[in-house]
Amino acid sequence: MAEMHDIYEMMSTLRAVRRIKPDPIPEEVLERVLLAASWAPSGGNMQPFRIIVAQSPEKKAALAEIYKPEWVKYATRFMEGLAGQPEEVLDKWRRIIAAGDYMADHLHEAPAILLFIANPKLMAITDAHLDRISMVGGGSVYPAVQNAMLACRTEGLGCTLTTLHCKREQEVLDLFEIPEGWGTVGLVPIGYPVGKGHGPITRRPPSGIAFKDTFGQKWEAPA
Amino acid sequence: MAEMHDIYEMMSTLRAVRRIKPDPIPEEVLERVLLAASWAPSGGNMQPFRIIVAQSPEKKAALAEIYKPEWVKYATRFMEGLAGQPEEVLDKWRRIIAAGDYMADHLHEAPAILLFIANPKLMAITDAHLDRISMVGGGSVYPAVQNAMLACRTEGLGCTLTTLHCKREQEVLDLFEIPEGWGTVGLVPIGYPVGKGHGPITRRPPSGIAFKDTFGQKWEAPA
Repeated sequence: MAEMHDIYEMMSTLRAVRRIKPDPIPEEVLERVLLAASWAPSGGNMQPFRIIVAQSPEKKAALAEIYKPEWVKYATRFMEGLAGQPEEVLDKWRRIIAAGDYMADHLHEAPAILLFIANPKLMAITDAHLDRISMVGGGSVYPAVQNAMLACRTEGLGCTLTTLHCKREQEVLDLFEIPEGWGTVGLVPIGYPVGKGHGPITRRPPSGIAFKDTFGQKWEAPA
Repeated sequence: MAEMHDIYEMMSTLRAVRRIKPDPIPEEVLERVLLAASWAPSGGNMQPFRIIVAQSPEKKAALAEIYKPEWVKYATRFMEGLAGQPEEVLDKWRRIIAAGDYMADHLHEAPAILLFIANPKLMAITDAHLDRISMVGGGSVYPAVQNAMLACRTEGLGCTLTTLHCKREQEVLDLFEIPEGWGTVGLVPIGYPVGKGHGPITRRPPSGIAFKDTFGQKWEAPA
């Protein structure tokens, strides 16, 4: 068996890597990434998702054509929304947007793009009746996406999750000949990083996202 | 630093544990579970979710009251839907349902119940305009749920994700004094397992869930 990889180290250094090399991914490495995805839990163990591994130059090029204009629109609006923010905030986001531009420009060169699709008919979506947008369908597919991304990190592959392609979902469905009933819920380009790849992440800690028994009652870290 | 825990071992043995003991969870263990959740990626790094850690006997009892009748309804319908299946299939599901009954009966005894809530206004939900149910909102919260559950597995805690409480979401929102705008997307009771806890899982392998370049074109494992 291969060397051990500590789970907490992998989780705490899984950051978005948007600059990846065209170098091929060994088949057995890609298989481990898919295997990790397959292990994820899902409602009623239905595994109501599929993963299309885009590797042919034609499919990747067509996907990049769909993706790029949506990225440009999103990035432009995003930066407009930051108008008036302090310069250091703008600078941080400019660097992230530049990496996103790189990804959009080079998407077709990624050695593999994982397209996650999911079929709501294979799920019991318990919040479908509510007077808010449904989110529960994602509960049977994004755990698999997260497992796949953690496996990428473990294998030294860079990756990031985007859902911008949903803006033009029909074109993506047509491109991969996906039958009716399936929705495209995530695009994960993967490959070896151009730069350092994984590394430190910036997140609010538990005290910033958790509450004790009641909303607003701050979670305190143990002394 | 603590001992190493191999990420692939944790992923491949994370199974639903529905029978958990009332024994308390040390604060530093719970903190690590929440920390793992906090590390998850989210769209625009917004971390648009919160975790309410239910530990007070009153909150847990009230939550169990909400949950149990929904579980009974779901389990009854689920078994009815299996009518006519071979006896071994029925048997497998009867065992799972019995574990679910145990969980519903003992939910208030779990030392901690993690309630994940998410705010769609903090997300860019790219599939909201489509002529299918939206799932993308889940992409910024279920990676955190999966991280938390993997951390439970790592810490020797049993857990399982349920979303049945959404059937009566308003009562859950009221119980935890959750303000408008937030939806309740996952309930994860955690605690030390009554039985063996983690162990082998049954999943379709990559060849059963992945395709090569086109829907229907089976992914082949490397020789």
